[in-house]
Amino acid sequence: MPLLPEPLQRLTQAFERLPGIGPKTASRLAFYILKAPDPVSTELAEALKGLRASIGTCPVCFNITLADQSQCDICGDAHRDGSIVCVVEDPMDVLAIERAGAFQGKYHVLQGAISPIEGIGPDDLRIRELEERVKAGGIQEIIIATNPSMEGDATALYIKKQLALYPVHITRLARGLPVGGDLEYTDQTTILRALAGRQDM
Amino acid sequence: MPLLPEPLQRLTQAFERLPGIGPKTASRLAFYILKAPDPVSTELAEALKGLRASIGTCPVCFNITLADQSQCDICGDAHRDGSIVCVVEDPMDVLAIERAGAFQGKYHVLQGAISPIEGIGPDDLRIRELEERVKAGGIQEIIIATNPSMEGDATALYIKKQLALYPVHITRLARGLPVGGDLEYTDQTTILRALAGRQDM
Repeated sequence: MPLLPEPLQRLTQAFERLPGIGPKTASRLAFYILKAPDPVSTELAEALKGLRASIGTCPVCFNITLADQSQCDICGDAHRDGSIVCVVEDPMDVLAIERAGAFQGKYHVLQGAISPIEGIGPDDLRIRELEERVKAGGIQEIIIATNPSMEGDATALYIKKQLALYPVHITRLARGLPVGGDLEYTDQTTILRALAGRQDM
Repeated sequence: MPLLPEPLQRLTQAFERLPGIGPKTASRLAFYILKAPDPVSTELAEALKGLRASIGTCPVCFNITLADQSQCDICGDAHRDGSIVCVVEDPMDVLAIERAGAFQGKYHVLQGAISPIEGIGPDDLRIRELEERVKAGGIQEIIIATNPSMEGDATALYIKKQLALYPVHITRLARGLPVGGDLEYTDQTTILRALAGRQDM
């Protein structure tokens, strides 16, 4: 006999599959939804429905965007400085930097970092596409904002080597970032400091 | 301009409305669902759909149950000892005790605790229904397992007074529970100890 009525058990298990949500949090969320006003549940269900079909990848910077857009809002924003490009691992890193609110350039999302252990090499990332953007001209500075981890550092060094022949200034976010940490968890003040103190590499 | 594409923003906001989930966790969950295999998202959406309509309240013990059941699985289980009834505040407390796996009696869910601050009095709880169950006979022991908080203690004392005239043994979970804490967060070992060391009141 299950401990919970089947529909509640099912919702609990669906929550448990999400990262960072254990059995107790999952059942707490399920019970909350059971008692909460109706919009809490229906809005979550509606938002889940068709999420993936509606989200695509920007062909310029490889950040996420609406599936029917030819490029993302940031790439299409004429007010942003296209001569300075911030290179990050994931779309969540773009979000973290945008939240800090101090960067007015554009982005390039690598979609990961070089990791021999996980079998991810340079060709699995959007590094070639970054090189194409640099080759096309108009970019004066590349800020490498990969995570301050072994993989992020390796990726940064690889990119620096790949772009060595181009007349572009390459910087890396200052080591205000906690080493071994994750960019997306960094608080806004630290991100602001790291942007301001970025150094030549 | 929103920081995220609208469908992702919407999902993030839906997650943010859940208890204990802040903006960063919410966006992390939304990004996870975007990248996760399809069942993670569809199963969550399906489980949310019609949850409330499918869940009802057991008319005997007031625990949650399937809407079309005349009583819950525990009340209907002939193998469980109906002469011993454990009184808890919420359905999640039943789950916590069932997970400990040491209790073979039945339950009574008060659906809250007496709290003058929140304006919850004895009549807002299922105390009268508990008295009716005791009056009907067959119950030898009432284990009061309300939270070890001011409200839980007040509720326990009130119930003890209400049942004073009936020939029923009233016990309270042992003070192995951390005072001021919440029953549903208690680890299983502590619950087992509290059950074993329950005391007369």
